[in-house]
Amino acid sequence: LPVDIEALADGVRRGDARALARAITLVENETADGRALVSRLYPHSGGALVIGVTGPPGAGKSTLVDRMVAHVRGVGLAVGVLAVDPTSPFTGGAILGDRVRMTGHAGDAGVFIRSMATRGQLGGLARAADDAAVILAAAGKDVVIIETVGVGQDEIDVAQVADVTVVVLVPETGDEVQAIKAGIMEIADIFVVNKADRDGANRLAQAIEMNLSLHTYGEHEWRPLVVKTVATTGGGVEDLWRAIFTFRDGAGADTRHRRRRGCDARLRQLVAAAFLRRMERVLTPEQIDRMVDRVASREIDIYSAADAILRDMAMHESHHDEIAPAPIAERGRP
Amino acid sequence: LPVDIEALADGVRRGDARALARAITLVENETADGRALVSRLYPHSGGALVIGVTGPPGAGKSTLVDRMVAHVRGVGLAVGVLAVDPTSPFTGGAILGDRVRMTGHAGDAGVFIRSMATRGQLGGLARAADDAAVILAAAGKDVVIIETVGVGQDEIDVAQVADVTVVVLVPETGDEVQAIKAGIMEIADIFVVNKADRDGANRLAQAIEMNLSLHTYGEHEWRPLVVKTVATTGGGVEDLWRAIFTFRDGAGADTRHRRRRGCDARLRQLVAAAFLRRMERVLTPEQIDRMVDRVASREIDIYSAADAILRDMAMHESHHDEIAPAPIAERGRP
Repeated sequence: LPVDIEALADGVRRGDARALARAITLVENETADGRALVSRLYPHSGGALVIGVTGPPGAGKSTLVDRMVAHVRGVGLAVGVLAVDPTSPFTGGAILGDRVRMTGHAGDAGVFIRSMATRGQLGGLARAADDAAVILAAAGKDVVIIETVGVGQDEIDVAQVADVTVVVLVPETGDEVQAIKAGIMEIADIFVVNKADRDGANRLAQAIEMNLSLHTYGEHEWRPLVVKTVATTGGGVEDLWRAIFTFRDGAGADTRHRRRRGCDARLRQLVAAAFLRRMERVLTPEQIDRMVDRVASREIDIYSAADAILRDMAMHESHHDEIAPAPIAERGRP
Repeated sequence: LPVDIEALADGVRRGDARALARAITLVENETADGRALVSRLYPHSGGALVIGVTGPPGAGKSTLVDRMVAHVRGVGLAVGVLAVDPTSPFTGGAILGDRVRMTGHAGDAGVFIRSMATRGQLGGLARAADDAAVILAAAGKDVVIIETVGVGQDEIDVAQVADVTVVVLVPETGDEVQAIKAGIMEIADIFVVNKADRDGANRLAQAIEMNLSLHTYGEHEWRPLVVKTVATTGGGVEDLWRAIFTFRDGAGADTRHRRRRGCDARLRQLVAAAFLRRMERVLTPEQIDRMVDRVASREIDIYSAADAILRDMAMHESHHDEIAPAPIAERGRP
């Protein structure tokens, strides 16, 4: 079915839930229509505060997001929630696609909740989340919450889409938990110590503060806040919102810097993805497959194979030698 | 200092520990010398069994790998261990870089242990791990264990480098732990239920078996094995090795298929990365920065910006219009 982009954009801007759902599916599937829609809506998408919520599994992120939604709904703000699930590389299925989310908000037209996944490569997940946030912002949502599962590179990429990044931790022991914490220390604008009624909550909060105090903050650099919550009861959720708005009002330069960095990374990934589509147009599937087979059978190494592909592409495209990138062996010398 | 690739390759093939360390640093930093070295060593790297060990934080992976090393050393095999840490996108530092690993094997020349990180984009972590495994294999290691931290896309990419993938889980409760498990169900050749002396170990093993039995296996498709271990005491580690060798001997077609898929993904990432370097050669940093600024300030959307960059590159490179990829809006229609 052809998509009427103008009509869909109008539906999105009216906040029509069916139009929203359809629009997000288009960007999730990385379609040309989705791209055209985002181009159309982008100028109207500056009004929402986009909040990323991330942290290790079991930290209680979903419950916390549920409470955060209830709280801002209470003051009359419209909210969109994107629950971003890492996609299996083999089936492309959303892990939490069938999870029933936040049934307490069912029937509230001021809340739009959506699970998202994408099978895309090269930053596709972050790009799809960014596009979906644009759509929700253009639909008039005041707040867009992007909740991620896990703490890998994907989640870090997704966190960079947000204006504010909330990292949720829980009191626990164990070396590896500490190690993970180190990995996400640097993306947090606000730390939440959730399950703060547990033993060790104060110790964890102190450990975070201690860690933060080791860092020297520049003049315009934001020092992350630490907030304690008990998501199951709603305790501390108002403090969390206060911290989020404090960040929004006080950390302008930091936010702009981060937003720019995220745009830069996504732009490069998009250019790289365009080149791979070009490869698939210029070379036959058999040519590509043959090269992969030669690498897999150890006939040639992967760097020589990539050079050969770039040479083949240049040969098919033009008689000008300078169009091919220099061989890989000549590049990247530190 | 210029690197004498031939001398370094000879040192690696002799198994010299200093040469190994230097060689892995070269590939970790994604240098041209590292690529040349891998090209040189690749034909000699077919002899090792590469085992990926992954799973959520706190599952006891490091302790288990330590026990696995002790066991194969006991039967006289030479072992290399790569502890792959996700890299912070901001500092580029290795999370576990300063972790003291497996001091029990200090002084054993048959064991080489190395923490790895990379600041590379576009699959750089998996590529560096693959290169390091090639180096260790060329050095005569019979077994190379790649241990990853976490369960994100990076770790899944790294797991695809391995011939056998071991997913380590522990008995626990909580919805999100179950969700994470779903995400790595499909990359496991062997499941380890570690901390099997805990309550719930049998329940977890049964849940995995139940999950596996929902899947229909093709004629040449491997049905993952489930092994219980208590890494702290070494219990079950012999069973794990038996399962690994059973997989190696029985799942040839599956391994070849996966190896091919991993080569395909890494080859595409390498070609894409080459195109980005080309962009940086053809356009000035100011041109790229200006485009990023326009996206960050919402003047234009990211898809239009990527199209503009591709057009600019084509203009600088040639007078032939057909060299530019088609505009992004015209591509990717499902």
